[in-house]
Amino acid sequence: MPIAETPQPPYTAVIFTSLRTEGDRGYGRMAARLEERALQEPGFLGIESARDDLGITVSYWADDAAAAAWKRVAEHLVAQQRGRDVWYEDYQVRVATVTRSYGPAGPR
Amino acid sequence: MPIAETPQPPYTAVIFTSLRTEGDRGYGRMAARLEERALQEPGFLGIESARDDLGITVSYWADDAAAAAWKRVAEHLVAQQRGRDVWYEDYQVRVATVTRSYGPAGPR
Repeated sequence: MPIAETPQPPYTAVIFTSLRTEGDRGYGRMAARLEERALQEPGFLGIESARDDLGITVSYWADDAAAAAWKRVAEHLVAQQRGRDVWYEDYQVRVATVTRSYGPAGPR
Repeated sequence: MPIAETPQPPYTAVIFTSLRTEGDRGYGRMAARLEERALQEPGFLGIESARDDLGITVSYWADDAAAAAWKRVAEHLVAQQRGRDVWYEDYQVRVATVTRSYGPAGPR
């Protein structure tokens, strides 16, 4: 997974941090399908994901409204419920406004 | 590493995404020492980190000024330079204001 190619700030970041339960229980398949689905959402800018004991997924959106609309997509609602019931020991969602961005390739 | 116990928003999140070069080259030792040092910084709220091919570290700060002060700490400046020269193939830093937070344990 590469570093996301996001535009000049401001834009919205949704930081999803989680601790998984044991075993896959359909998680891998859902995660792949849901990422595919997110790519097609209006205002989707990019996604970055890593997991060792903790999992962190940051999705980037044009604005808070685009991020909120994604939260309400039917397939995503189903996954959120299954996440609470089965996949996640614990999790936290933080919605944030990116105000500055810098790196060797500029403001990306 | 547990999920960070952050207060009610607003607060500042610094999302650091990176791709490492091959080999450790002193990275592990620096990362551990720098995390120790960050804990003592005024306004430090917490840190979350995960890596597989991509690395994501999110540090949480009371406000933008606290995050900016940490960027200028001497030991951190040395690490930033060494990161650019040796440890990172590519990286991006995004500074963001967390406006909402939710999870099974509340606004954390």
